[in-house]
Amino acid sequence: MWILHQYPLCPFSRKIRFQCAEKGVAVECVREHPWERRDAFLLLNPAGQTPVFVQGAVTLSDSTAIAEYLEETVERTPLYGAGAEARAETRRMCAWVDQKFYSEVVVPLLAERMFKRLVTRGQPDAATIRGAQRAAEGHLDYLDYLLEHRRWLSGPAFGLADVAAAAQVSVADYLGGIDWDGHEETRTWYSAIKSRPTFRPLLAERMEGLPPPAHYDKLDF
Amino acid sequence: MWILHQYPLCPFSRKIRFQCAEKGVAVECVREHPWERRDAFLLLNPAGQTPVFVQGAVTLSDSTAIAEYLEETVERTPLYGAGAEARAETRRMCAWVDQKFYSEVVVPLLAERMFKRLVTRGQPDAATIRGAQRAAEGHLDYLDYLLEHRRWLSGPAFGLADVAAAAQVSVADYLGGIDWDGHEETRTWYSAIKSRPTFRPLLAERMEGLPPPAHYDKLDF
Repeated sequence: MWILHQYPLCPFSRKIRFQCAEKGVAVECVREHPWERRDAFLLLNPAGQTPVFVQGAVTLSDSTAIAEYLEETVERTPLYGAGAEARAETRRMCAWVDQKFYSEVVVPLLAERMFKRLVTRGQPDAATIRGAQRAAEGHLDYLDYLLEHRRWLSGPAFGLADVAAAAQVSVADYLGGIDWDGHEETRTWYSAIKSRPTFRPLLAERMEGLPPPAHYDKLDF
Repeated sequence: MWILHQYPLCPFSRKIRFQCAEKGVAVECVREHPWERRDAFLLLNPAGQTPVFVQGAVTLSDSTAIAEYLEETVERTPLYGAGAEARAETRRMCAWVDQKFYSEVVVPLLAERMFKRLVTRGQPDAATIRGAQRAAEGHLDYLDYLLEHRRWLSGPAFGLADVAAAAQVSVADYLGGIDWDGHEETRTWYSAIKSRPTFRPLLAERMEGLPPPAHYDKLDF
């Protein structure tokens, strides 16, 4: 079985877990806090980041590399789309959420609301949190716009862009970064994601000492 | 013919140009300064980033998506390696240079030495530049280590990891961010890159008003 080194609020680990669930790949999760920079973990991934995906002698890191590996090696439930152009759009949207949404929304929320609460015991910076919430607004406007024209984020079929976006959005939502008012298209999309049996285990998980808002795991939010 | 929207010091545009040259794909370059945020460019790529790659009705953005598209559609000179595990290593190394090297080394150098010189006419911050140079030291140590064990960055064959790394390293070198002393493995690797006819056009190009160091385009540096 594949072993995934991860922690509950790592959005890139959530992406791989959700993808594996969709493709029917069994995964055993092992807890890793990358900020502890354990020597044994740095040997697995010199970048010091979760997720790391291990089976026997195969050790993979970087969530994009892992996701492509799963797409190449597991035939069931292809998630990149049909044709090179559709796959380019899937990858463009993955890069959007993995890089832009992550750095503008998830990174400041993790720093202020998770890291300061659980690790450094510092006071969260309200201006930084407001900045992340404003950035989330802009991103949800863009997702709304896309979803007015498409059934799913990269086209007519559910795919890896939805997986990657749901991973980032769910962490931002857990950390109180998302105001759903006025984002009906994205809310409908996320409601459909939340009702997938493959996604529900992620919603059920908690980071100890850091409860999510009441609406977080509700289908009606 | 493909049209590439880019500017000379955009490392991700260099990656696509170098990849296209290796694969024999003709490209016409069109100048774009993404920091001007022109409306017509934002319509091509709402992320507002170069490169954007256009041919007829096909518009692609995000350099990873473009690179994968080229690999899928152009049979000549495959650059990702043979087998899913080799391709995962290629992609891990691409992510390393595109994300870590870029954000820790290239972003501060572009901000202090290009943007302040050509756009805002501000005084570069010496401490930020030193920080980027120190980060480059650490990255070159890691590349040295890899190249002690491998002929090329992701394995025995030249591939997209070399293309992506050469793109980032060449921009950092152009901006005076790299001290080659003590990095013989990476220097030998980069010397081999510099002597490729597919890479030489990139080395010959200049950003107006911003000359590179004397060693920049020399094969012996």
